[in-house]
Amino acid sequence: MQARRMVGALFLVALAAAGPAVGEPRHADLLIVNGHLVTMDGEFRVIEDGTVAVEGSRIVGVGGPELAGLFAAEETIDAGGDLVMPGMVNTHTHASMTIFRGLGDDVPDRLRRFIFPLEAAVVDADHVFKGALLGAVEMVLGGATTFVDMYYFEDAVARAARAVGVRAVLGETIIGFPAPDAEIPYGGLDYARRFIAEFAGDELVTPALAPHAPYTMDREHLELVAAAARELDVPVLVHLAETRAEIEQIEREHGLSPVEYLDAVGLLSDRLVAAHCIFVDAADIELLRERGVGVSHNIVSNVKAGKGVAPVLAMRAAGLDVGLGTDGPMSGNTLDMMGLLGYTAKLHKLAQLDRSVMPARDVVEMATIGGARAIDMEDRIGSLEVGKLADLLIVDVDSVHMIPMYDVYSALVYAAGAQDVRTVIVHGRQVVRDRELLTVDVERLKADVRELTDEIARQAARL
Amino acid sequence: MQARRMVGALFLVALAAAGPAVGEPRHADLLIVNGHLVTMDGEFRVIEDGTVAVEGSRIVGVGGPELAGLFAAEETIDAGGDLVMPGMVNTHTHASMTIFRGLGDDVPDRLRRFIFPLEAAVVDADHVFKGALLGAVEMVLGGATTFVDMYYFEDAVARAARAVGVRAVLGETIIGFPAPDAEIPYGGLDYARRFIAEFAGDELVTPALAPHAPYTMDREHLELVAAAARELDVPVLVHLAETRAEIEQIEREHGLSPVEYLDAVGLLSDRLVAAHCIFVDAADIELLRERGVGVSHNIVSNVKAGKGVAPVLAMRAAGLDVGLGTDGPMSGNTLDMMGLLGYTAKLHKLAQLDRSVMPARDVVEMATIGGARAIDMEDRIGSLEVGKLADLLIVDVDSVHMIPMYDVYSALVYAAGAQDVRTVIVHGRQVVRDRELLTVDVERLKADVRELTDEIARQAARL
Repeated sequence: MQARRMVGALFLVALAAAGPAVGEPRHADLLIVNGHLVTMDGEFRVIEDGTVAVEGSRIVGVGGPELAGLFAAEETIDAGGDLVMPGMVNTHTHASMTIFRGLGDDVPDRLRRFIFPLEAAVVDADHVFKGALLGAVEMVLGGATTFVDMYYFEDAVARAARAVGVRAVLGETIIGFPAPDAEIPYGGLDYARRFIAEFAGDELVTPALAPHAPYTMDREHLELVAAAARELDVPVLVHLAETRAEIEQIEREHGLSPVEYLDAVGLLSDRLVAAHCIFVDAADIELLRERGVGVSHNIVSNVKAGKGVAPVLAMRAAGLDVGLGTDGPMSGNTLDMMGLLGYTAKLHKLAQLDRSVMPARDVVEMATIGGARAIDMEDRIGSLEVGKLADLLIVDVDSVHMIPMYDVYSALVYAAGAQDVRTVIVHGRQVVRDRELLTVDVERLKADVRELTDEIARQAARL
Repeated sequence: MQARRMVGALFLVALAAAGPAVGEPRHADLLIVNGHLVTMDGEFRVIEDGTVAVEGSRIVGVGGPELAGLFAAEETIDAGGDLVMPGMVNTHTHASMTIFRGLGDDVPDRLRRFIFPLEAAVVDADHVFKGALLGAVEMVLGGATTFVDMYYFEDAVARAARAVGVRAVLGETIIGFPAPDAEIPYGGLDYARRFIAEFAGDELVTPALAPHAPYTMDREHLELVAAAARELDVPVLVHLAETRAEIEQIEREHGLSPVEYLDAVGLLSDRLVAAHCIFVDAADIELLRERGVGVSHNIVSNVKAGKGVAPVLAMRAAGLDVGLGTDGPMSGNTLDMMGLLGYTAKLHKLAQLDRSVMPARDVVEMATIGGARAIDMEDRIGSLEVGKLADLLIVDVDSVHMIPMYDVYSALVYAAGAQDVRTVIVHGRQVVRDRELLTVDVERLKADVRELTDEIARQAARL
């Protein structure tokens, strides 16, 4: 999406945050001290003995150890030298599909032969809620503080995100055949209107429209979705240029690339987040950039499906905003953003046969501020900067596999795992403290999900 | 290496293991009950409510719940439905290089411009011991019960492996220039003779020769190593067909492929474990198979270095024994075998553009019994079978990212991480219990390693 860089505005807030004169400490709800800050700000500042101050939902101070004395805090967390970084943005997933994790792996043509029939047979609002709860729990434990989701019954996903306390951009799926939450083709559009009205203005949830893909909808309904997005002023999420079959079908039917086709129906704009974009050429990339489209790069899903490596180096060189996504847990199979960092770095080195491309810092950038830019939220999240929402992580660097640490980006990309995320703060609230989730009863959730799986396994065995 | 399949012998042991008549329970040191057994035996048996009995260093019973009553055990572990599987075999690493983890990532031509000079400047026996301790700890915590190592001061690595209590095949490096443990070129061969004599017959350590690579040694010394291996009756470890530059150099100098060249010098045999083998053609693969060479496939290292994807599907189709390796922690950058499973499955799907190739079970096979075959130890390790050494893992399936579990292989390959390894038994001894290492003081080790890193960082900054 279009980068609305608010450096000027942030500087004003930073000056304001200096607050009263020395000697009168300013109130903070939370102070994190002794952190190794990976700010991901405009200068990629790394502050070895750093302090972050939080008041309400916002970051009000980012600096060195001297900053700690300027605040009188309700609570202080000693990070003990651990990394403090912005919460990660998972720019594409289907969180509810955790309930199908590991079903039908290694099976060809899985979407049409397996996933769609399975969803038609078993998915209801209860499945979606419980699956999304499990997915949101996994994501926040692993350091994603914002996720972008496309599925059915997206209001149930919204309730799950709220319950877990994680930020989310949630797109109700619109598709050209009957769906679990719509008896008629394209019924998702009406569902979406109700969902968007219900969650308008929510502090954590941004409701959105999710036209499934250019190849599962007709032109008329793609145009209707584009018009509805403008009317409702909401983000739009889509799968785009994901398979060779899609490229061939859209070329055959419309004489255009999928990117050109979405432009023709009016969907390419700065509200669009396009997942995958594996099969795009230089003209497609330029068109995406001109229209301000954000791209979600899903390397683990794309390689597990044997699809290919999206030309992200070219996209970044052209100035496109690219974030990272896990895709759903039938594709991934986890929602592990930390693991995704390593895959992203390595797969582009392989694709170029050059170990120096896609260096670690670029990957951390895509997982944080880059993802925020892709979903047009870089004025609020994605970096440790005064004035931004307090979505941040403390990452343990004391585990055996993290020692020694010569470079923070290398440690995050090539060594860290989801289990190294120690503490997670979203919207100024502690959601995970020392690896313990504070918001949802995880044991009960696991039991609930296991109850669903017997029936799912029975249905899957028939496919 | 040559597969010495001992199915017949194992059946005899199995019958013997049935032991005395019902009513007289047989003694066992350890009984694991309520495990979901992933045996990796010849029939790939999975036993949902399984029991494993261990006496001394050996497995003496593998079966269902009825087996538990046949044994009177000193200690019983209730696996609580968790997976019980053979310990994994890391077929190629340089464990001591943990002390360099994360240095010079994303730098081109790293081996000659960075690693060799750095090693010359800083590596001594103390570094090697502490680095190997850290590496061995990381490996065993992550489920590797055997590792295959190539480095300098390999006797120090052996002492580290013994201290941690992990099985190891350790190759002393022989290379055509002065090395950290040899003032003259090829001095490693004399060092190796002393090392091999010292550790002959050790229950955990198998000493070996490690000629570095075809391109870092002259022909005379490759032949000397081949003769020494026959004389001493030890395994040989080598880097082979790892880079395009190596292919071109050996072709230019000898008119042969690196595989053909190693055959010409007498090194291709069932004692050889060849790491990487990225650039091999059908004739090379057939020659490797004829000679009984074991191959170590190191996909994470190979893609991070932008080298390529070894033709492992063709190797397996030809009947070659292929195991998995992490390579060293300057390459990987972790020694995480669980993470390696997912990379291995996915990268071959990408290379073939086919999601159905390299299914999950094949990957688990390579990580366990396949690795054991590659290092010619399949008569002793690699599967849960009566008569084999008790090298096994309990893998937690109760974490959020492991739920639900429809298929054990899919769960291990696509969802599990190193942190899910709960308990590790090597040679019948518990080395890790509920994620806690029982053998080495990890906090002291971490402090020791951190002391080394300041000096290393200073030396690295000059390169």
